[in-house]
Amino acid sequence: MKELEEKILCDGRIINNDIIKVDSFINHQIDPKIFKDFAVHVKKHFKDFKIDKILTIETSGIAVAYAVASELGDLPLLFAKKTKSAITTDDVYATEIKSFTRNVFNNVIVSKRYLKEGENVLIVDDFLAEGNAALGLINLCKQAKANVVGVTVMIEKGFQGGRKKVNELGIKVYSGAIIKEFKDNKPVF
Amino acid sequence: MKELEEKILCDGRIINNDIIKVDSFINHQIDPKIFKDFAVHVKKHFKDFKIDKILTIETSGIAVAYAVASELGDLPLLFAKKTKSAITTDDVYATEIKSFTRNVFNNVIVSKRYLKEGENVLIVDDFLAEGNAALGLINLCKQAKANVVGVTVMIEKGFQGGRKKVNELGIKVYSGAIIKEFKDNKPVF
Repeated sequence: MKELEEKILCDGRIINNDIIKVDSFINHQIDPKIFKDFAVHVKKHFKDFKIDKILTIETSGIAVAYAVASELGDLPLLFAKKTKSAITTDDVYATEIKSFTRNVFNNVIVSKRYLKEGENVLIVDDFLAEGNAALGLINLCKQAKANVVGVTVMIEKGFQGGRKKVNELGIKVYSGAIIKEFKDNKPVF
Repeated sequence: MKELEEKILCDGRIINNDIIKVDSFINHQIDPKIFKDFAVHVKKHFKDFKIDKILTIETSGIAVAYAVASELGDLPLLFAKKTKSAITTDDVYATEIKSFTRNVFNNVIVSKRYLKEGENVLIVDDFLAEGNAALGLINLCKQAKANVVGVTVMIEKGFQGGRKKVNELGIKVYSGAIIKEFKDNKPVF
């Protein structure tokens, strides 16, 4: 997505040649226009797949997942919640996800009411780095015996191995923009 | 909004004649259709006002605020973040907000980069109960010298005084559905 790459170049801030801050248009302030452009690309990319539900994780996945759910015909959108316990119970599927930026483990859950066997689920998030969030959401789908149609993110940090881990599970990844590396505090696509 | 009242009656779950759970279509699983219907009503209600920016608070405000920002012509949407410290610094405006459902205090911040003097801000959230979130967001706008055009929420619990507190600051409230009371574990509009 040329538009997204340009937006990242223009408005993204790189810290220590490692972390990219996109809080002016993705994860603090949100620019709905670029989210909609991304959702149109996602729709095109997954046009041959049956998708029943969108799954994301709070917090910064919610708006982009909403944009995709809306573009795909107002599909139901489920967001996994951070919580205190990572124990699967009668009510919830639970897993543990490591946060790349904060280096902490979050316990996340989804209600068993809203993730069902046989549902075709597209996982959506703002970022793919080491793949921890994606793998955690895939794990929740596996527990529910739901099918994961694919993983789609706005920005992929291509040098952090997330795509490979997801692909190894036989699941495809589609990204709006893939950052190959940071060079002189600028992203290279 | 008749559609929203019907949805609440049909899919909402009341606990102890006090708390209403709408996690099947608002704050765990999301139904984009009802969010869009609400956003259309908000647009109509505020059609005579100049609005530059939408402000909400993570987590469950984000999707409804996105729907409104989108309907109002892809306005920038800013979500206040929960954080550890409630101290206003060179970078952020901070305040403290009491959570009605969890009975804890959250420190919330917005970056000074994204909330500016003279901006016309519409505050959007999923719920209005005691008004704590709304008052906290108004406080952040006051610190930034931004103008609050109004407060709009999908569901108002009319018996908990939030509207009165917001109105006393000279700010109007528009709600998609107002629950007057719970009776026999059912909402009365």
